[in-house]
Amino acid sequence: MLLATKSLFENTKNLAQKDIDVVLTSTSDNSKYLASIVSELAGISPKISHSVESLCNSGANSVVSAFAYIAAGLADIALVVGAERFDSPGRILEWDRSRGEYKHPIYWSSMFTKAHMRKYGTTKEDLAIVSAKNHKNATANPYAYFEKEYSVDEVMQSKNLTEEIRLLDCSLPCSGSAAILLASEETAKKYTSCPVWITGIGEKTISAGFTKNTDLTTMQSTTHAATDAYKMSKMQASNVDVAEIHDAFTICEIIELEDLGFAKKGEASRYARICYETQDRKINPRGGLIGSGHPLGATGIAQIAEICQQLQGKAEKRQIEGAKVGLVQNMSAAATSSTVLILQS
Amino acid sequence: MLLATKSLFENTKNLAQKDIDVVLTSTSDNSKYLASIVSELAGISPKISHSVESLCNSGANSVVSAFAYIAAGLADIALVVGAERFDSPGRILEWDRSRGEYKHPIYWSSMFTKAHMRKYGTTKEDLAIVSAKNHKNATANPYAYFEKEYSVDEVMQSKNLTEEIRLLDCSLPCSGSAAILLASEETAKKYTSCPVWITGIGEKTISAGFTKNTDLTTMQSTTHAATDAYKMSKMQASNVDVAEIHDAFTICEIIELEDLGFAKKGEASRYARICYETQDRKINPRGGLIGSGHPLGATGIAQIAEICQQLQGKAEKRQIEGAKVGLVQNMSAAATSSTVLILQS
Repeated sequence: MLLATKSLFENTKNLAQKDIDVVLTSTSDNSKYLASIVSELAGISPKISHSVESLCNSGANSVVSAFAYIAAGLADIALVVGAERFDSPGRILEWDRSRGEYKHPIYWSSMFTKAHMRKYGTTKEDLAIVSAKNHKNATANPYAYFEKEYSVDEVMQSKNLTEEIRLLDCSLPCSGSAAILLASEETAKKYTSCPVWITGIGEKTISAGFTKNTDLTTMQSTTHAATDAYKMSKMQASNVDVAEIHDAFTICEIIELEDLGFAKKGEASRYARICYETQDRKINPRGGLIGSGHPLGATGIAQIAEICQQLQGKAEKRQIEGAKVGLVQNMSAAATSSTVLILQS
Repeated sequence: MLLATKSLFENTKNLAQKDIDVVLTSTSDNSKYLASIVSELAGISPKISHSVESLCNSGANSVVSAFAYIAAGLADIALVVGAERFDSPGRILEWDRSRGEYKHPIYWSSMFTKAHMRKYGTTKEDLAIVSAKNHKNATANPYAYFEKEYSVDEVMQSKNLTEEIRLLDCSLPCSGSAAILLASEETAKKYTSCPVWITGIGEKTISAGFTKNTDLTTMQSTTHAATDAYKMSKMQASNVDVAEIHDAFTICEIIELEDLGFAKKGEASRYARICYETQDRKINPRGGLIGSGHPLGATGIAQIAEICQQLQGKAEKRQIEGAKVGLVQNMSAAATSSTVLILQS
């Protein structure tokens, strides 16, 4: 957390601790008063500070909260820091214990996978391609947890966890942190010559338990959030140059590509295959959660940081040339809630 | 939590679950994904939902966050629910363990008490008057944890916890919940003929550990927050008709009365004594934390609910006649952070 914060200060000329009005921390850890602790350790005495928790999309939620503080005129500059340990209590769906076997996320992802296979003929190879693609992308990301490529075959031969899911179909809960700064329009221009603007925001919570999602070939919360974000930004999927989407499991990326409008229903596997074969990094250029690791509370912030770097032309080996419009989709708990953001340079 | 939410729906004619855009939960519990769980159980599918945590002022923080979502145009109606169990992990300053003996709040309150006694001659009787006053006020509050009056003598004779602090100088961490609705100006008028407006907001975090507060006769974070809240609302202490202030311990109310401008430094004991003797309920009409109990994450919301009822003329036996301007002060962890709100009818 402090490392991520420190690197932000190093990368933002003339930014002083006293300029920070808001410090939000994003985690599913059991820590208390974390935003005040981070503030004290970083030498900041903000006006507003608190933690934000919503499992795996705590990160995007905290960024939207910071946006709101600034847009409401209560703050000018906000620091949003997410962090998680590999053994976070948020990695198991404690709230869903009443649903018996389904407390581990691989069970809901298996059910999504089976439903998508039945309806659209999605294959295990289709899933493996997503993993191979994202692992390959991650090799160009110095902050990724995984450093090595896996072939489609290697993914398919990895350990069976359920009938549908192999080990390499899964993202790995890990320790990690990410931090970003938000500022009002006028202030942002003081600190950077290449600001990135949040032009679209969509958020939706359907429920807590995933059994409310009656069609397991779609993620209702993502569809709602995407509709709102596209509407607010006056953009659509065809305008998006680069996207970080929440591939907690390979099936997630496939369903999300469809629900976000990048591919028609049933055609995302083909879309992902073309990306893989043509080495197009447009989707999950940093390697997504599968390649980068999934430190729950930090994930949404890391996704946003990647898209900002892409839109600023600072993504180095991962750079999508001329990227002007980016999308982030961050979701929680079997996609019972989602956040979609449109970012533009 | 659900009881508090249910009573809100009962009291708000024509409000439907689908009208709620935001559900924020406020707690220092270890629960995860609580805002989604509450939403599902209450039949709400909001756009925005997450938990807010900042120990004892989580409640006021979550209300300010909801205000920001609405003011930013991202939402129209927000439900803010706080809840805590008596055994919340937030009741002990885990983050302050490095400071050895000071992990229980009675130690910092003892140090504040000793400092104020030395500098201003505050006596144990002065402290006891605050407790007797707030316990008396609580007898008119049907939701208070304590139902019985205590004389000044009884407070002074209660168990010694430290040299300065008696048992009845302390608020009691307890189970409890509170819920309120926020709406945009236009929408609020659809649901109530007596809306209450948030006209002033001040928040400040000095640090996490209280040793940064170098003058223990004042609460720096409260002073900062009050200055901002008064400025934003163009009000001052002399305009305030009724206030809920964070009397975690009797010394807190005394210092806060001074830092909020109700009394000059060193004169709050006299101010509280006059309130007690004249049965003036202006300060902590519901009994404050000492009389009502202190369910951490719910406390700030309960304070705000009380002031709203006062400004709406709905406070029944506790009603301050003609109250038009109210103040809420909610703080955390030895006043290392504070929120001050000005509310007006």
